[in-house]
Amino acid sequence: MPLGGLHEIGKNITALECGEDILIIDCGSTFPEDEMLGIDIVIPDFTYLIANRPKVKGLLLTHGHEDHIGAVPYLLKEFNIPVYGTRLTLGLVESKLKEHGHEGDLREIADGDRLKIGCFQIEVIHVTHSIPDAVAFNIRTPAGCVFFTGDFKVDHTPLDGKPIDLRKLARIGEEGVLLLCSDSTNAERKGYTPSEKNVGITLENIFRTNPSSRIFVATFSSNVNRVQKIIDTAVLCGRKIAVSGRSMVNVISIAIELGYLKVPVGVLVDINKIKSYPDSELLIITTGSQGEPMSALTRMADGEHKSVQVKKGDVIVLSSSAIPGNEKMIFNTMNKLLERGAKLVYNDIAETHVSGHACQEELKLFHMLLKPEFFMPLHGEYRHMRAHAELAMSLGEKEEHIVIGENGRFVSIKPHKVELTKDKIECQPILVDGLGIGDIGNSVLKDRRILSESGLIVVAATIDRELGELVSGPEIMSRGFVYEKESGDLLSDAARVAAETIAKFDLSALRDYGPVKAAVKSDMQKFIDRATKRAPVILPIFMEV
Amino acid sequence: MPLGGLHEIGKNITALECGEDILIIDCGSTFPEDEMLGIDIVIPDFTYLIANRPKVKGLLLTHGHEDHIGAVPYLLKEFNIPVYGTRLTLGLVESKLKEHGHEGDLREIADGDRLKIGCFQIEVIHVTHSIPDAVAFNIRTPAGCVFFTGDFKVDHTPLDGKPIDLRKLARIGEEGVLLLCSDSTNAERKGYTPSEKNVGITLENIFRTNPSSRIFVATFSSNVNRVQKIIDTAVLCGRKIAVSGRSMVNVISIAIELGYLKVPVGVLVDINKIKSYPDSELLIITTGSQGEPMSALTRMADGEHKSVQVKKGDVIVLSSSAIPGNEKMIFNTMNKLLERGAKLVYNDIAETHVSGHACQEELKLFHMLLKPEFFMPLHGEYRHMRAHAELAMSLGEKEEHIVIGENGRFVSIKPHKVELTKDKIECQPILVDGLGIGDIGNSVLKDRRILSESGLIVVAATIDRELGELVSGPEIMSRGFVYEKESGDLLSDAARVAAETIAKFDLSALRDYGPVKAAVKSDMQKFIDRATKRAPVILPIFMEV
Repeated sequence: MPLGGLHEIGKNITALECGEDILIIDCGSTFPEDEMLGIDIVIPDFTYLIANRPKVKGLLLTHGHEDHIGAVPYLLKEFNIPVYGTRLTLGLVESKLKEHGHEGDLREIADGDRLKIGCFQIEVIHVTHSIPDAVAFNIRTPAGCVFFTGDFKVDHTPLDGKPIDLRKLARIGEEGVLLLCSDSTNAERKGYTPSEKNVGITLENIFRTNPSSRIFVATFSSNVNRVQKIIDTAVLCGRKIAVSGRSMVNVISIAIELGYLKVPVGVLVDINKIKSYPDSELLIITTGSQGEPMSALTRMADGEHKSVQVKKGDVIVLSSSAIPGNEKMIFNTMNKLLERGAKLVYNDIAETHVSGHACQEELKLFHMLLKPEFFMPLHGEYRHMRAHAELAMSLGEKEEHIVIGENGRFVSIKPHKVELTKDKIECQPILVDGLGIGDIGNSVLKDRRILSESGLIVVAATIDRELGELVSGPEIMSRGFVYEKESGDLLSDAARVAAETIAKFDLSALRDYGPVKAAVKSDMQKFIDRATKRAPVILPIFMEV
Repeated sequence: MPLGGLHEIGKNITALECGEDILIIDCGSTFPEDEMLGIDIVIPDFTYLIANRPKVKGLLLTHGHEDHIGAVPYLLKEFNIPVYGTRLTLGLVESKLKEHGHEGDLREIADGDRLKIGCFQIEVIHVTHSIPDAVAFNIRTPAGCVFFTGDFKVDHTPLDGKPIDLRKLARIGEEGVLLLCSDSTNAERKGYTPSEKNVGITLENIFRTNPSSRIFVATFSSNVNRVQKIIDTAVLCGRKIAVSGRSMVNVISIAIELGYLKVPVGVLVDINKIKSYPDSELLIITTGSQGEPMSALTRMADGEHKSVQVKKGDVIVLSSSAIPGNEKMIFNTMNKLLERGAKLVYNDIAETHVSGHACQEELKLFHMLLKPEFFMPLHGEYRHMRAHAELAMSLGEKEEHIVIGENGRFVSIKPHKVELTKDKIECQPILVDGLGIGDIGNSVLKDRRILSESGLIVVAATIDRELGELVSGPEIMSRGFVYEKESGDLLSDAARVAAETIAKFDLSALRDYGPVKAAVKSDMQKFIDRATKRAPVILPIFMEV
């Protein structure tokens, strides 16, 4: 029996390993945390995979959300491996690869498929989620079956008419599941997540009760089934449809091309030409439900959208909920839209959104059908995984059969024995800033933080080395510190402080400028603190002639 | 009849004006918005008041929360006017003034008091809120009565046994209210805000069901009645009490001194000596319920608290809800506490917190008792004021009798006529950074933003003016851009680019360095963008010898 087990390498990327084979499951990117100033996205650290390059046999994708596919282009820069995903998932990956000027060996899979990669035998199982074409994987390893749910909810009445085949789960459970790795996002929430159908009913009501208003719906572009429902409802009401926002335009065009979205000919109209249609005959689908600074809806709220001016009487539906951290941006956008006279319909007022993740009763259902020997909560913050672990215990799962993972810690998988080991690999998240991948470390982020809080003061001086004399400067310049025109006195006082400090040194005797730079920095910090109670970065520059 | 009306000068500061008298109601500070990098607090603009200095007769305070008293020290730097507030409110103001090295003419008022300031006759009315000693004001002006609710909820069973005297409101309504200015914070929420008593019951349950655990309660320090309840419960269970967090220590000591908080002798113990007590005999009251970076609870979560190490078995109660914008910080703190093995009890799990603001049914109650002729929603974001306006209309208030204000816009108050006029005064919020009040403008904030995202590159060069030659440099230094040691090539390439740009100029012919600086900046930006897709601040410094 070869050594088997798994590493969670980062947020939504798992390396399942057995003997000479590594299979990667999902490869997500995340948004930077607040303290990661200037960072565009965060991707997983592939060091362990690179060190084990010959073993890496392929990448399996559960669904097409950014946090599961966002880092695929970065992985494929390192690995020429096949990528397995459903049609829509691969369509989204392909568009992402194109942006990076890449191609990939993309292999389409579908519900019911069985494939063999290295020593792993994989069964593909359709699940319902907030994006079509999501799947779970039951992976037979030499030690037993490992079931990855991916992200899911149990929606018995999804808009596309494709619920989860619960009997298939029952059969898989019957065959025996060694380890269940399950979505924990909503593990703190009691009950059931409502069906996507409910949102459909709310949308129909909004259209019916506002026949003469222009209607806007802001939602997540990847929720293609909901977008279809919005389109269908608009078409029934005789409205034309205009689309705003890059990701919405992009996903809609991919979904139409791949047959996931059906729009009658002549219904879509150019967002720049909406003035030709009366309000009662127009629906605008837009991005920006999170109040993101440059998104279409935010530009409308700010009065900066090229083609759309929000006006009194407009009905704007936020078909979304706040992703934690975005609350304030969303409220700002809402306030501005209201100030323009629009009527807002959002999730506190009507059921304009439902989650894509399973609540406690659905999680229990998966447990009871699959009856795993061991359980590992995945996907979510620590508090969610802990709540999920407690839920499993309430169903009779023994505490010692539950593993809460930790990034990089190896989870050993043996017949009738799954455990968190002490083995740990290095896998700090990698920060991407512009073209740079991983070149921004803590010291740069710390500098950015201090710069953001108090700006910087440059003290420049030119020294004649032979004479041992200051021949130019010290000159003081600042950025982000105070408004220079109003602080002339402060900065000229600062120059005097620097000059006095420099005068204390015998410049001809110095082997390097380290000590004088340090003294300038320290005296300047004291002066600035006393004068302003601020702590800008002080950057002394000494030049020689 | 002299000209009368009001200006909202900022968040929670209203200037009520009539003839030669101005009365200020509340004087709050706010937290900086996310884009206000490095700003400590935001205060109102007193320009209008300063321009009308002789008219300003006094400041009335409704209650002691930061967003109603935070800017008082800044106001009193400009005005030597009497400040009227209840005992606890003035206690908190006094402590604030002390920090600023100030004194004030503080005049204590209480429920039922009637005072005359200029042409205004004021009646003080006790209301329930999440801080004791909150009051509303009914202000008789020559045009009629203006009723300011301040922040309130209608709690029939407050912990201190002092509900609102609804019959007094009925009497005031009977006498006639021209304009009601009312708290709108919870105007979007249906029903009633639960009583503070419910939190008391939850706390008792937590203490009873965790007799052997160390218990922590994190809450808002200003909720003195809740703190009293926590203390009483702990005392009943035979626990000693340790307090952590500067504001908690401060408010508790003020509240004890003024008689708002009663703690039996010998119950309070030093937080540094908690190791002497068994877990079952200890309660820790702490700040940090918002996950604020340097707060006591966050330091405990990070393992950086001097005296408290959180451990398995600890029960930590978050007796609070998230202030919008703090969600992610709170979740981070929660995750870390859970990882340390603590059990968390928070508002999603049990009723550990109730709001201090009135929901729709309570707002309706105030309306129906006071029956104002005109209505102006106050306190809250635009969406809240709009919801409150709609609520008033649902009670029969005519739309043209409702005024939604706008900072600085003058609301004219005449007998049977209140309206928003076009008159507007300048009152942009003032940013305070360290000792600087209002010296940080948009250009500095913009610099800070760019610095925070991409850092900065300094290009320094020394020119011999007579020779027209570059005699030193260009030297390149960066901060917050890339990790310098790993980017030696990039920065030396950048130096070469700068040198080439400078070489294009005939330095002896230049009257100033403006054009060469601009060229260096532009070429450098292009080079850096091509090489890194980043846009740091470029700061060229030219020195002369």
